[in-house]
Amino acid sequence: MKIAIFPGSFDPLTNGHLDIIERSAKLFDELVVAVAINTSKNALFTTSEKVTLIEEATHHLANVQVVPTKGLTVTLFKQLGASVLVRGLRDEADYRYERQIAEMNHQLDKTVETIFLMAAPDNSYVASSIIKEIAKMHGDVGTFVPQNVCRALQAKYK
Amino acid sequence: MKIAIFPGSFDPLTNGHLDIIERSAKLFDELVVAVAINTSKNALFTTSEKVTLIEEATHHLANVQVVPTKGLTVTLFKQLGASVLVRGLRDEADYRYERQIAEMNHQLDKTVETIFLMAAPDNSYVASSIIKEIAKMHGDVGTFVPQNVCRALQAKYK
Amino acid sequence: MKIAIFPGSFDPLTNGHLDIIERSAKLFDELVVAVAINTSKNALFTTSEKVTLIEEATHHLANVQVVPTKGLTVTLFKQLGASVLVRGLRDEADYRYERQIAEMNHQLDKTVETIFLMAAPDNSYVASSIIKEIAKMHGDVGTFVPQNVCRALQAKYK
Amino acid sequence: MKIAIFPGSFDPLTNGHLDIIERSAKLFDELVVAVAINTSKNALFTTSEKVTLIEEATHHLANVQVVPTKGLTVTLFKQLGASVLVRGLRDEADYRYERQIAEMNHQLDKTVETIFLMAAPDNSYVASSIIKEIAKMHGDVGTFVPQNVCRALQAKYK
Amino acid sequence: MKIAIFPGSFDPLTNGHLDIIERSAKLFDELVVAVAINTSKNALFTTSEKVTLIEEATHHLANVQVVPTKGLTVTLFKQLGASVLVRGLRDEADYRYERQIAEMNHQLDKTVETIFLMAAPDNSYVASSIIKEIAKMHGDVGTFVPQNVCRALQAKYK
Amino acid sequence: MKIAIFPGSFDPLTNGHLDIIERSAKLFDELVVAVAINTSKNALFTTSEKVTLIEEATHHLANVQVVPTKGLTVTLFKQLGASVLVRGLRDEADYRYERQIAEMNHQLDKTVETIFLMAAPDNSYVASSIIKEIAKMHGDVGTFVPQNVCRALQAKYK
Repeated sequence: MKIAIFPGSFDPLTNGHLDIIERSAKLFDELVVAVAINTSKNALFTTSEKVTLIEEATHHLANVQVVPTKGLTVTLFKQLGASVLVRGLRDEADYRYERQIAEMNHQLDKTVETIFLMAAPDNSYVASSIIKEIAKMHGDVGTFVPQNVCRALQAKYK
Repeated sequence: MKIAIFPGSFDPLTNGHLDIIERSAKLFDELVVAVAINTSKNALFTTSEKVTLIEEATHHLANVQVVPTKGLTVTLFKQLGASVLVRGLRDEADYRYERQIAEMNHQLDKTVETIFLMAAPDNSYVASSIIKEIAKMHGDVGTFVPQNVCRALQAKYK
Repeated sequence: MKIAIFPGSFDPLTNGHLDIIERSAKLFDELVVAVAINTSKNALFTTSEKVTLIEEATHHLANVQVVPTKGLTVTLFKQLGASVLVRGLRDEADYRYERQIAEMNHQLDKTVETIFLMAAPDNSYVASSIIKEIAKMHGDVGTFVPQNVCRALQAKYK
Repeated sequence: MKIAIFPGSFDPLTNGHLDIIERSAKLFDELVVAVAINTSKNALFTTSEKVTLIEEATHHLANVQVVPTKGLTVTLFKQLGASVLVRGLRDEADYRYERQIAEMNHQLDKTVETIFLMAAPDNSYVASSIIKEIAKMHGDVGTFVPQNVCRALQAKYK
Repeated sequence: MKIAIFPGSFDPLTNGHLDIIERSAKLFDELVVAVAINTSKNALFTTSEKVTLIEEATHHLANVQVVPTKGLTVTLFKQLGASVLVRGLRDEADYRYERQIAEMNHQLDKTVETIFLMAAPDNSYVASSIIKEIAKMHGDVGTFVPQNVCRALQAKYK
Repeated sequence: MKIAIFPGSFDPLTNGHLDIIERSAKLFDELVVAVAINTSKNALFTTSEKVTLIEEATHHLANVQVVPTKGLTVTLFKQLGASVLVRGLRDEADYRYERQIAEMNHQLDKTVETIFLMAAPDNSYVASSIIKEIAKMHGDVGTFVPQNVCRALQAKYK
């Protein structure tokens, strides 16, 4: 059985994240969405809010589960007996950052492999940080995030 | 009548900004420089100082006006009945960031169009953040910003 | 009156080109699509075929005209009394190449200004060269080019 | 059963290619290395030489097979009932090119998915084209390609 | 006599920094490692800890000395009668940032020249910031930093 | 004595090349401009024309000499007892290409070191290939190349 892990901060989940989840869930037997437990005060959503939002948005995907995680990703990789980490690439800045992280992880544990999926064109400009800016100014973010996340953002910035 | 908007934080105005203003003012009937009202505490200049500095530096341009603005750029775009947003591109990092913003704006309102001008080579390395660093250490920033901004920076870091 | 020029080789016109034409035609009084006369033997379409294909695909745009051109773009710019060149940016490789060309043109004639529009996300991966490869192998290129260009490609590679 | 395809021109196979083959063979039940049949005259090795070189270099991998292919990759994808295409990323130029190809393939057939593996740091500068240049000048390419490919290059440029 | 300066924040020294120091020390008569005196509260190591760590790690290099510095790099350049600044390039983001800084420095003082060395492939993903993240979570950073820095990191995050 | 080599094809020498020559000649005792002997038919200038043009344009630099070279750059490096190769970086595409070449050279001979200088902003868009295009169409290339090269280009395309 091949288990894949999609780690991230998901503050909050976007349509871009959801697309990567749906596509990678097809490639492996199980996909674990690993939500990094907030270590700074800057996160908008609590870890448990994030987990709930992702669970709601992925309940149509039978082989996806969502777990909070802290510590090194490579430790989780070992614990779960995973085969691969999954990450999305929206643009070249992502490419560079992800390459650094992937090599670091591989260096920490040579058995850790990472695969990358290209973001769909319509999601290639969708970033959690900009979405929060727009929501803060009461702009409509309904085309960038799942419906439940949209409502949660509106509630945060009411 | 075609109105263009050049939005930014201008903390402070640089020769790079001024060049984009002068060049785009030639292409459209009116150019509105929209100064984002400071939302964080990190800005060096107050919004009203920024507006004054830009007004002084652009008083030779008859079709340019400077306005403070808050909220979404697309809202201002509608209010002014603008035809286009104008932004400068200094390098590839600018390209990527601006592409995200342009797409987000277009998604929020399909009538919003953005055009880009390439920074002149001599301005392609000029960044407000580095200028402030240099001014803070009492380096001479006279070749990077208009004279009035240079004096204002010296006053801030006296 | 402000005249814009959109120069290119258009071998053949893609949906990406057409999008830039439609968007920039709204910003200026007249848009001239300037088709570079083939200088190498490698072009698939003749210059006159290219002109016809673009004329057909843009006949709904009253202020667009198509002209073949040879020699320097800056010469055409002067002849037409144009205000601006228009170019599209699909990605960072485009950014770099276009920056070189824009600076060269500006250096050859200081009155020449170039503005850039970002390709729509769905067109950001559409390249004439790859489209020809696909058409050559009888793949369906109907989502990448206008219908008349699609038929012309099929005829070329029958 | 999940089948992955690694398509390429492999003129010739490098240590970078081999690393991608070894790593992706671990992730899927079967890996098919698809060697594009030469369409231009510029290839150094014949298609059948390429296939043999790859077969020799991968004979320790039980679930890897090598096939020559012509036509669209998406056609092969359907024929083999594959789940995924695999490609390596050495740098940002690769990123951009591969993104174009991946989107084109996805557009041609929505069931086609592509995953990317980052080249190992030591392989990130290894390019078939430069290797051929070095071999042509009788430089030692032994650290860039498998031993059998090294011998084949020496034979070509004797 | 040609003096080179390698300026940085070194929070902390990595194997990547050390490689640049060793390689550039061979090219010039003297190499001065200039440690920027901490101006923010965010640094993990004090300036004097940084100096000591670098001195320990470079004591095998006879022509290298380490100095704390504050103020503009161009001022130090003049004071030392240096010929050149040295900086490393790990990736394209480094390229862009370093180009800005180099041009700014050159503009502040036309006699200031900067040369760049490419990071070795194995160091091209090594970043002080990520190393601190890993050390904080008690991951093993022994392959990314010199031994004395490794011990110092462990002591900081005990 | 430290000898630096600036290798290239110089078809033809540009102001960008000349700037790199002048700046790097200050850093080392001797600078050898190594002109690659044409191996393809596509060069505009013969190797001996190139050498003469560079000699004329650099005759004010006492420690610069120009040599034609063929074969691997690392071989020339050994023969001359050089300390370093010098290359210019105009943009990120240059960065990537030069990184590949530098690593390849280092792999072929571990003693080979390469340093990079950033092109001056005004030269950062100057490319031999585009200059030839402009000269071919009888555009004025006088701001991009030394005077003697300008005359040589006019003679070629008369």
